[in-house]
Amino acid sequence: MADKPISRFPVPALDDMPEDIRDTILGVQEKAGFIPNVFLTLAHRPDEFRAFMAYHDALMEKDSGLSQADREMIIVATSNDNNCLYCVVAHGAILRIRAKDALIADQVATNYRKADITPRQKAMLDFAMKVSNNARAVGDEDFATLHSHGFSDEDIWDIAGVTSFFGLSNRMANVTSMRPNDEFYMMGRG
Amino acid sequence: MADKPISRFPVPALDDMPEDIRDTILGVQEKAGFIPNVFLTLAHRPDEFRAFMAYHDALMEKDSGLSQADREMIIVATSNDNNCLYCVVAHGAILRIRAKDALIADQVATNYRKADITPRQKAMLDFAMKVSNNARAVGDEDFATLHSHGFSDEDIWDIAGVTSFFGLSNRMANVTSMRPNDEFYMMGRG
Amino acid sequence: MADKPISRFPVPALDDMPEDIRDTILGVQEKAGFIPNVFLTLAHRPDEFRAFMAYHDALMEKDSGLSQADREMIIVATSNDNNCLYCVVAHGAILRIRAKDALIADQVATNYRKADITPRQKAMLDFAMKVSNNARAVGDEDFATLHSHGFSDEDIWDIAGVTSFFGLSNRMANVTSMRPNDEFYMMGRG
Amino acid sequence: MADKPISRFPVPALDDMPEDIRDTILGVQEKAGFIPNVFLTLAHRPDEFRAFMAYHDALMEKDSGLSQADREMIIVATSNDNNCLYCVVAHGAILRIRAKDALIADQVATNYRKADITPRQKAMLDFAMKVSNNARAVGDEDFATLHSHGFSDEDIWDIAGVTSFFGLSNRMANVTSMRPNDEFYMMGRG
Amino acid sequence: MADKPISRFPVPALDDMPEDIRDTILGVQEKAGFIPNVFLTLAHRPDEFRAFMAYHDALMEKDSGLSQADREMIIVATSNDNNCLYCVVAHGAILRIRAKDALIADQVATNYRKADITPRQKAMLDFAMKVSNNARAVGDEDFATLHSHGFSDEDIWDIAGVTSFFGLSNRMANVTSMRPNDEFYMMGRG
Amino acid sequence: MADKPISRFPVPALDDMPEDIRDTILGVQEKAGFIPNVFLTLAHRPDEFRAFMAYHDALMEKDSGLSQADREMIIVATSNDNNCLYCVVAHGAILRIRAKDALIADQVATNYRKADITPRQKAMLDFAMKVSNNARAVGDEDFATLHSHGFSDEDIWDIAGVTSFFGLSNRMANVTSMRPNDEFYMMGRG
Repeated sequence: MADKPISRFPVPALDDMPEDIRDTILGVQEKAGFIPNVFLTLAHRPDEFRAFMAYHDALMEKDSGLSQADREMIIVATSNDNNCLYCVVAHGAILRIRAKDALIADQVATNYRKADITPRQKAMLDFAMKVSNNARAVGDEDFATLHSHGFSDEDIWDIAGVTSFFGLSNRMANVTSMRPNDEFYMMGRG
Repeated sequence: MADKPISRFPVPALDDMPEDIRDTILGVQEKAGFIPNVFLTLAHRPDEFRAFMAYHDALMEKDSGLSQADREMIIVATSNDNNCLYCVVAHGAILRIRAKDALIADQVATNYRKADITPRQKAMLDFAMKVSNNARAVGDEDFATLHSHGFSDEDIWDIAGVTSFFGLSNRMANVTSMRPNDEFYMMGRG
Repeated sequence: MADKPISRFPVPALDDMPEDIRDTILGVQEKAGFIPNVFLTLAHRPDEFRAFMAYHDALMEKDSGLSQADREMIIVATSNDNNCLYCVVAHGAILRIRAKDALIADQVATNYRKADITPRQKAMLDFAMKVSNNARAVGDEDFATLHSHGFSDEDIWDIAGVTSFFGLSNRMANVTSMRPNDEFYMMGRG
Repeated sequence: MADKPISRFPVPALDDMPEDIRDTILGVQEKAGFIPNVFLTLAHRPDEFRAFMAYHDALMEKDSGLSQADREMIIVATSNDNNCLYCVVAHGAILRIRAKDALIADQVATNYRKADITPRQKAMLDFAMKVSNNARAVGDEDFATLHSHGFSDEDIWDIAGVTSFFGLSNRMANVTSMRPNDEFYMMGRG
Repeated sequence: MADKPISRFPVPALDDMPEDIRDTILGVQEKAGFIPNVFLTLAHRPDEFRAFMAYHDALMEKDSGLSQADREMIIVATSNDNNCLYCVVAHGAILRIRAKDALIADQVATNYRKADITPRQKAMLDFAMKVSNNARAVGDEDFATLHSHGFSDEDIWDIAGVTSFFGLSNRMANVTSMRPNDEFYMMGRG
Repeated sequence: MADKPISRFPVPALDDMPEDIRDTILGVQEKAGFIPNVFLTLAHRPDEFRAFMAYHDALMEKDSGLSQADREMIIVATSNDNNCLYCVVAHGAILRIRAKDALIADQVATNYRKADITPRQKAMLDFAMKVSNNARAVGDEDFATLHSHGFSDEDIWDIAGVTSFFGLSNRMANVTSMRPNDEFYMMGRG
């Protein structure tokens, strides 16, 4: 499938990228063994690339009351609801690895209510789905429900932040027809 | 995960099943190497079990202008739209095997518009989604579109039949919390 | 209206049908005084015909905590929600007869919340509508609500089964443009 | 069923009504043989009663490129879509009488796309459904489609007017739980 | 912008209007300083004009447990939900004046849940939104909620009446492309 | 209204902010005459603040085939569709100023199809609404439509980028109950 386009927009060669972006990408490649296509697709717009990655890291690499697996669950559940192929496949892989669970990503993507997760995680995903689809109606009763599951206000911000940021990502991936790397499909299933 | 319930309803022991149902199930087990949970879940209702399997076979094992992979694609796409975990996981496995393609099921489940399939298959899935969500509005123009992709009226019945039957299946699987066997997740990914 | 087509697909002559199907149809005709068009429409596909009728009978003729009128209400309410002309008209007739109530079918079809039915029946129809439109979200709280109205788990399976089966039927009737027999419109109104 | 309430709000006795309203109601009763419950329900609010009836007559009794049967079809189709029991039952009766067709009301209510009506009438009802559900998006292309079916701009106003007025009526009937008179169910079926 | 059409239908000259309609309009002009375009647009249909204005006054000028500002809030919230430009702009102006609050109209139009209004007003608007979008499901529990906020049954009729009438108005304004007068945009902001 | 909270989360004092963020905010204050509340609300999370502002500037201050008024229109139309009070009020103000048009923001927010904008701008907003609500279905035909209005592929990325970024912003503003500054309501109306 190496000949399938990874974006419907131009994808710059590594040599043509600004140095900081090339360095970022080479760093990821060294760690992951391949370059996730989101990096190449967004490198078409260097300033947006930088802001996107900074936002991603601010949400995903911070300390939080949400584990990294929790955050990946939010991405996988809302991305399938938004029918974003790139995000479900790529973050499904990361979720399997973070949660050390080969089945969890397909469960959470398809119907988190039937997944092998805790009631606390289901409440977290209920809220993420509301932020994704009906943020207009988020209010005190949602905060109360989440508090009753042990989430702090800061955790709630984190749920909303991850959901909202990947809502952006889902939309851009769908518009650009961003193609997930073949490598992601099998990661963490072993 | 062997201790997770496969249905929220009682699941009969093989020895307690009517002989024809036990025979069917043992036949499947011999072929597949395990018993898909849909057989055990529905065995709770022997008459419904028999009708369900007969209907399934009438649609899925007949000769058709739709290949078996085509029919599995319909199941996978509409089942994810209905958020049916059992059907996406089990038929995703069968689709990978039928299509000899390790990536196809995740693509078709998440967003068939971005999948590595033909325009004819996309038209087939567009129609399947309309049958699933808005059959009330199916009319001449849908038939004309499908004809233009080379589908006959009989093929159109087949698309509608597979979609409608698995719409039934999706609803029963969601109400019974039917659990996909762990084996399905990895089948056909090799 | 005898010249209006009853299906957009070919309808076999009685003489051309497999014997078991012809016998079934002649039996229905003897009892009802006419042949409901669903039999003729589906006879185009003998194997599907047999499975459809077996499934129908498994759900509709079994003993159940749901009366036969209850089951017809489920069909009428969800079929109008799916805008299925055949099912609303044909099962509306059967509902009037089963419930010995000339008004009940139009009430349940149009807005069951305003119909002359019991709170238990309204809870049954609330659940049927959820199975029809949002089975993905069916869970413990739905079972608890139905238990509080005296429904057993087996009754809940029956509600789900009838809803899901007629969801299949609604979709096939809409795709085939299955025409209800004129006779149904007046049955049970007297 | 004479003891079923016709409204969840107080219903005035004829003797307690303002004279003009009582006269209107007695006139209707003389013509129809009974008093349609909408008159009694709305008589609770005399000023709204008068405006409602004046609006009704301005739309329904005027000369128009839409026949009176056409206008009743609009009411029946959109009222079922709004799940208004009173309007479907009462105007279904009037439609049967106006169109001299015992089957037409159930067809148009359940799925007008499958009804025995002309393509022009289907286009009219397509537009009525758009006005009812998505008036925000009505634009030039809708006018062009309707012109191509022979509707003038004045006819289009009439379609929109009837749809909008009965949208009001549907909402008030649902909020007041306005009960259709038993007489309506059988009218025009003979 | 004086050359922008105020309606896609013909707008009669004042001199060509029936005398009572011209008098009404001149009266409004004297009070408001300009003629709101709804009067000119609807004057194309004198009988509908008269009924519309009578209905409007019956709901909006009566004594009620709802203040006039309350009633304008209902109009503004539901009209934005229906994307009716005329009604949001014109009644937004009136709301600012009635409530003596320069910010209230934009708040209520955009998201009343975030507006500077009372919990009682939020409950009123929750119900108005349900009447507008889902009147089919209005029932006892809605009445109970509103009673708990101090609304009487008569107040509830008023909420439903205003919502339903302006639902009519929203649809007609969208179909006619009724243009709000430029004057409205600034009224009450000072 | 100075005592109304601007966020349901803690808002840091200027003195407690990291220096770069304080400098950014003081710079904005000097230019605008006040500190827009989005800066104060997001300052609660410095890393997210920095990424948000960088992303904003990358999309909003770049050269583009979309004018700055075009970009503000996208924000205003999609933010009202998402019922985001902060974004409609704040970016409505900026739109009025950028477009030098006192009426444009209320028009575009309420129903852009009725706004005084060009067909090209309507096509742009049609696409923005699709990206916001149904990005899953964006495909070749959308690109073709936009090309026919003179948009380049890079312009299409810009429409998608602005829509997606403000979709994030809308969700965070609704979850945090971010309050628009009173100053925005009147800006550009003069």
